[in-house]
Amino acid sequence: MPIIEVHLLEGYDDAARTRMGEALTDAVRLVVPAEPDAVTVMIHERKPTQYMRGRRHRQGAAALPDPASVVRAYLDAMEARDLAAAQACLADGFTMTFPGAAPMHRLQELIDWAKPRYRFVRKSYEGMDTCATPGPAIVYARGTLSGEWPDGTPFEGIRFIDRFEVAGGLIVRQDVWNDIAEVRP
Amino acid sequence: MPIIEVHLLEGYDDAARTRMGEALTDAVRLVVPAEPDAVTVMIHERKPTQYMRGRRHRQGAAALPDPASVVRAYLDAMEARDLAAAQACLADGFTMTFPGAAPMHRLQELIDWAKPRYRFVRKSYEGMDTCATPGPAIVYARGTLSGEWPDGTPFEGIRFIDRFEVAGGLIVRQDVWNDIAEVRP
Amino acid sequence: MPIIEVHLLEGYDDAARTRMGEALTDAVRLVVPAEPDAVTVMIHERKPTQYMRGRRHRQGAAALPDPASVVRAYLDAMEARDLAAAQACLADGFTMTFPGAAPMHRLQELIDWAKPRYRFVRKSYEGMDTCATPGPAIVYARGTLSGEWPDGTPFEGIRFIDRFEVAGGLIVRQDVWNDIAEVRP
Amino acid sequence: MPIIEVHLLEGYDDAARTRMGEALTDAVRLVVPAEPDAVTVMIHERKPTQYMRGRRHRQGAAALPDPASVVRAYLDAMEARDLAAAQACLADGFTMTFPGAAPMHRLQELIDWAKPRYRFVRKSYEGMDTCATPGPAIVYARGTLSGEWPDGTPFEGIRFIDRFEVAGGLIVRQDVWNDIAEVRP
Amino acid sequence: MPIIEVHLLEGYDDAARTRMGEALTDAVRLVVPAEPDAVTVMIHERKPTQYMRGRRHRQGAAALPDPASVVRAYLDAMEARDLAAAQACLADGFTMTFPGAAPMHRLQELIDWAKPRYRFVRKSYEGMDTCATPGPAIVYARGTLSGEWPDGTPFEGIRFIDRFEVAGGLIVRQDVWNDIAEVRP
Amino acid sequence: MPIIEVHLLEGYDDAARTRMGEALTDAVRLVVPAEPDAVTVMIHERKPTQYMRGRRHRQGAAALPDPASVVRAYLDAMEARDLAAAQACLADGFTMTFPGAAPMHRLQELIDWAKPRYRFVRKSYEGMDTCATPGPAIVYARGTLSGEWPDGTPFEGIRFIDRFEVAGGLIVRQDVWNDIAEVRP
Repeated sequence: MPIIEVHLLEGYDDAARTRMGEALTDAVRLVVPAEPDAVTVMIHERKPTQYMRGRRHRQGAAALPDPASVVRAYLDAMEARDLAAAQACLADGFTMTFPGAAPMHRLQELIDWAKPRYRFVRKSYEGMDTCATPGPAIVYARGTLSGEWPDGTPFEGIRFIDRFEVAGGLIVRQDVWNDIAEVRP
Repeated sequence: MPIIEVHLLEGYDDAARTRMGEALTDAVRLVVPAEPDAVTVMIHERKPTQYMRGRRHRQGAAALPDPASVVRAYLDAMEARDLAAAQACLADGFTMTFPGAAPMHRLQELIDWAKPRYRFVRKSYEGMDTCATPGPAIVYARGTLSGEWPDGTPFEGIRFIDRFEVAGGLIVRQDVWNDIAEVRP
Repeated sequence: MPIIEVHLLEGYDDAARTRMGEALTDAVRLVVPAEPDAVTVMIHERKPTQYMRGRRHRQGAAALPDPASVVRAYLDAMEARDLAAAQACLADGFTMTFPGAAPMHRLQELIDWAKPRYRFVRKSYEGMDTCATPGPAIVYARGTLSGEWPDGTPFEGIRFIDRFEVAGGLIVRQDVWNDIAEVRP
Repeated sequence: MPIIEVHLLEGYDDAARTRMGEALTDAVRLVVPAEPDAVTVMIHERKPTQYMRGRRHRQGAAALPDPASVVRAYLDAMEARDLAAAQACLADGFTMTFPGAAPMHRLQELIDWAKPRYRFVRKSYEGMDTCATPGPAIVYARGTLSGEWPDGTPFEGIRFIDRFEVAGGLIVRQDVWNDIAEVRP
Repeated sequence: MPIIEVHLLEGYDDAARTRMGEALTDAVRLVVPAEPDAVTVMIHERKPTQYMRGRRHRQGAAALPDPASVVRAYLDAMEARDLAAAQACLADGFTMTFPGAAPMHRLQELIDWAKPRYRFVRKSYEGMDTCATPGPAIVYARGTLSGEWPDGTPFEGIRFIDRFEVAGGLIVRQDVWNDIAEVRP
Repeated sequence: MPIIEVHLLEGYDDAARTRMGEALTDAVRLVVPAEPDAVTVMIHERKPTQYMRGRRHRQGAAALPDPASVVRAYLDAMEARDLAAAQACLADGFTMTFPGAAPMHRLQELIDWAKPRYRFVRKSYEGMDTCATPGPAIVYARGTLSGEWPDGTPFEGIRFIDRFEVAGGLIVRQDVWNDIAEVRP
């Protein structure tokens, strides 16, 4: 039953409008017990000349990228060890915290720290959750790890979850939890 | 700059309207790079007699509880070992998965599984994130664990994160990750 | 899918709002091929102090009665030969045209004209249709007639349809068609 | 005074918007005693990308034809005995009921039934009324009949009214009343 | 034809809503060549709980007084020499500039300056104009002066115009022009 | 905090939309004590086919010129003694009233009346105020006069204010006040 109208300055493409509609639909359903089919979203777009605040016309701003896409691009680049592509996803002051390690800042630190721990590791994703907040967007990626220990023994099905803070389309912070310590030799 | 209008059937109290406004504000900011101060939300409430769909007046529905509050109530009840209060937060078919354990369903299973692992454990919360989805609401609670090992040795600062699926105000599922295995004797 | 919003001065009761929602729902469906369930109507009511046109606040007006109810009240009163109640439904200048008769104006004319044609007649209604127009509302009542001929022979199942013009809650004109001539002795 | 706003997916041409505005204007005036000049209609059209229900963008649907135009096309085709053109206006299961006849389904049945009754008949229309309903649109066409009896004698001024049910732009049902039995030789 | 909707936090009485409607009606007619009768204003009032900006509910503010009323109260108080009442209309830093005099700040200065110029003076008002600006409201009061010169000779019909800047309901500045110099002895 | 929406027929250029937004912003701030930054204006433009009143589509009208621009054009043309350009700004029945003179109607009358009073005069503008009213727009232009007396002596800093009534983009009336009489030889 809820009907949501959004008034915006134009400048958004179809993908951004779709994400906006989905995010607003899900958000109102945190409070209103309605099925998605009962939630309508209408987007009204205004040209700058049709919008004024404080006696000035304003410009719309380009849409933020989908934070989940930013996180996935980063994780894929790291798995491929494409550090340049991964670095491009990161904001200044980026911090990552892994189980049993002090916070790290540079990707090479992570590569070095990981080297004695396993030959390689791959992520299988069960899902990603995006949380809208008053501050950065939060993205959770969870699933299982598979790979090989230093001695070549394979492992799989180790539970993991990563938490990312994404602001302005760049990753500010990454926190990782996993069950590696439960099972490693 | 975005202005969001929500049309609803009446029946929501101040707390629900506040949550709705905050959720919509944060949701639109996943796409529009605006500061919270630039996002306005107006809630229009209609009496059933002023609303009609399919040639029938409809009734509004009571607001869902804040899923983060449901999760906090559950975790506090568990910490106090008030199993009745904790159980009241759970949906049928509730499943919980802890590191190194098979999925459990009954709270007593968890109590028994935990007994040999530590004398007691307390959670210190760093934050909770709520994700709106097309399905259940997802709540993440993270922080650190402190307590005593079976031999009485205290521990503290062990990282944890719990993921909850909340539907209709009840917890359907809990997944837990933590660094206990990294540090336990 | 269509969403209709109506802005009105307050002063309408629940019955009027329901009729308004139904009429608007049906009206838009003359053009938009949507099922009734896909049509939403929201009524926004303003106090006179919140509405201004031509720099003056305006008063709302009382709702018109449902024209179909006016017609039904008239037909029921005529069948009961309660001429005072029937007359109260009529506007000045009321005209009625029956098959094979010149237009009549006074209810007594109709009673006299009908006397030699049948002992009595009762209407069984199959349905009533209301047409909104730029002028008066049009109401069609159709069904079958039953009764007794002057010689006492009963009749039934004779098709009839009456067309009424209703303006300001009063009947201005009535036109009648029926199959009496097909079957009367 | 009423102001009506309609929110639609785009895809309607000028003729459809005009019909929509007229139908809504007339519909609200069944309840609100306002002159047409006091009723404003504004149509807001959204591109599919700006509209979402149930987390999906929707397509608008093509406008239904004006049911009164469908009926007029049918009646004109029948008068010209262009059975193919007339048939194209009809839905499967079409039924027609004439005074003194059992319901007929095929146009040729009507031609045959009419043959012994008059040499030809022409309709002069006094007006057409369209009723919006929760089901099919109802169209009434009324006026007078003129023509020649089988013996060549002309007739004119015989009152008629036809009731049509139109769904999805096709005629589902026709019911006819007229005064032929009052006057035929 | 223009239709203006204003969304506000509640807290305005009837007088304020009337002034708002009139001001908006006149303002749009600076650009749109419509007669006042063609301009509609609708005021939508929200409770603080139904309005949120920057994730906070806001309070409405009390209406500003009609600046023309403030000016009239001041001029009437001055004419009655009720300096306390007049002073209450003034903001700190109030400045008044009369023809042929340096700017004055205190009402007593004006009384003293005026004493040798005329025995008394009365204002007859032809009209007052209010200008809305991005800064203070501007009020113009014009008409004619009558009174007596120091020697008792009466005078009348001397044209005057006063310009007032009103901010927050208090007069910040007054500029006076008149034809006294054209006619005084 | 106020949010103003204007619904219009299209046909306005950017300059007109800007003036409209500014005028509405300033107008609402006569009543609501909000800073300009807290006032939002959104202009919704409809094609004639999307707007209907009284069952008829309407045409939008071209914007009125900014009345302050009309006044400035007139005053500049007069100062340059371009009487044709000045005359083009005037409506039939134009009246001007100067201090110490009877009302005049033709520009040549003013030229002749002014000739013995000063060799030339130039206006320095301190500001212009525009007042929206239910009738004509009122424009005030104020500042100081400089020039030369008939004997060649220069003068400057003489206060003036002109009041103009502008209807349909043409000046209907001009009233002038100034301190010339205070200082002229």
